[in-house]
Amino acid sequence: MSRWKPDARGRLEKAALELYNHQGFDATTVAEIAARAGLTERTFYRYFADKREVLFPGDSPLADTLADATATAPVQLPPLEVIAYALTEAVPVFEERGDLIRQRQAVIAANPELQERELTKLATLASTLAHALRERGLQTTTAILAAEIGIAAFRVAYELWVNDPDQNTLAQRIQETLDTARHLATPAEQVAATEDGSLTGQENVA
Amino acid sequence: MSRWKPDARGRLEKAALELYNHQGFDATTVAEIAARAGLTERTFYRYFADKREVLFPGDSPLADTLADATATAPVQLPPLEVIAYALTEAVPVFEERGDLIRQRQAVIAANPELQERELTKLATLASTLAHALRERGLQTTTAILAAEIGIAAFRVAYELWVNDPDQNTLAQRIQETLDTARHLATPAEQVAATEDGSLTGQENVA
Repeated sequence: MSRWKPDARGRLEKAALELYNHQGFDATTVAEIAARAGLTERTFYRYFADKREVLFPGDSPLADTLADATATAPVQLPPLEVIAYALTEAVPVFEERGDLIRQRQAVIAANPELQERELTKLATLASTLAHALRERGLQTTTAILAAEIGIAAFRVAYELWVNDPDQNTLAQRIQETLDTARHLATPAEQVAATEDGSLTGQENVA
Repeated sequence: MSRWKPDARGRLEKAALELYNHQGFDATTVAEIAARAGLTERTFYRYFADKREVLFPGDSPLADTLADATATAPVQLPPLEVIAYALTEAVPVFEERGDLIRQRQAVIAANPELQERELTKLATLASTLAHALRERGLQTTTAILAAEIGIAAFRVAYELWVNDPDQNTLAQRIQETLDTARHLATPAEQVAATEDGSLTGQENVA
């Protein structure tokens, strides 16, 4: 066993999420997180300003990926397809961290204050996306609406995936959810006519 | 001058909004609000649990109106048209309170904590709307997406209206914004072909 311990950040994150889930976010101290990770508090503070930042890091690889993908999506795509393109590009950011993400969601779901913080983070993400869409030449209203529905679609897809990761991949969930979004303006008759097992339209009440 | 003072609640709200705007939300006390309204603190607490509740009342006529209108919208409407119907029904809730609403927005815009609270309120509103859409027989995903885009559209329309109330009515702004939402899935060519001066599609960079 080497005394050199690599990936201090990753180990602190893992230890923190385990403690937040076992004993609650509020009840967990930085000292406990560091101890569980076999590191010092000092090392914890090299990576995180406080215990909340483990859940809400200052830099957002997701925001960067969405903004970059939005900027580079093919020019002729309609707004909703730009969103589809950007969200699909962001999938690997999540899939490579599947278990940590599920633990993080459970911690947030158990704590109303963290839920408020998560909403603020999602609103910031929507602003980033809207800004990137305006940079493509979209009008402000179009950009904001496309960004909001993009984030909403992502959130729904993400929740379906987190709750049942073996059923479908995140990419499939996003595809499914965006199909639904594409048909929100479609009259019920047309939805019924395109019966393809997707999530669009009305449920059978049979 | 009669010593009987009607509409205590309305006067407290008006006094509070004026003080929040003049001297800041954090710096304002309940005692100051009551004094400005010519009432006692005791009366204030008969209507509001605390000074934040003036901005975020426990009961939401907007949520009730949206839920009721969603329940009674014509059966055959596509999800986005149900939203259009519900938002249009909610317009009078706002138009009759135009000035108070503008003051409220200014207070919230100046205070990050109040902004977080407003996001939470809007998320709750989206949940209420999604629930009402599910009650109509829509699938969960469809209901959530329609509700999210409905609230986003409303927020955009509302902001346009608050910032420039003389340009268009709130009802017109909602109509405009929903037109944009209807065309998010439309390829750029088709958007260009339906040149009608609405907000859809890409800006002219001429």
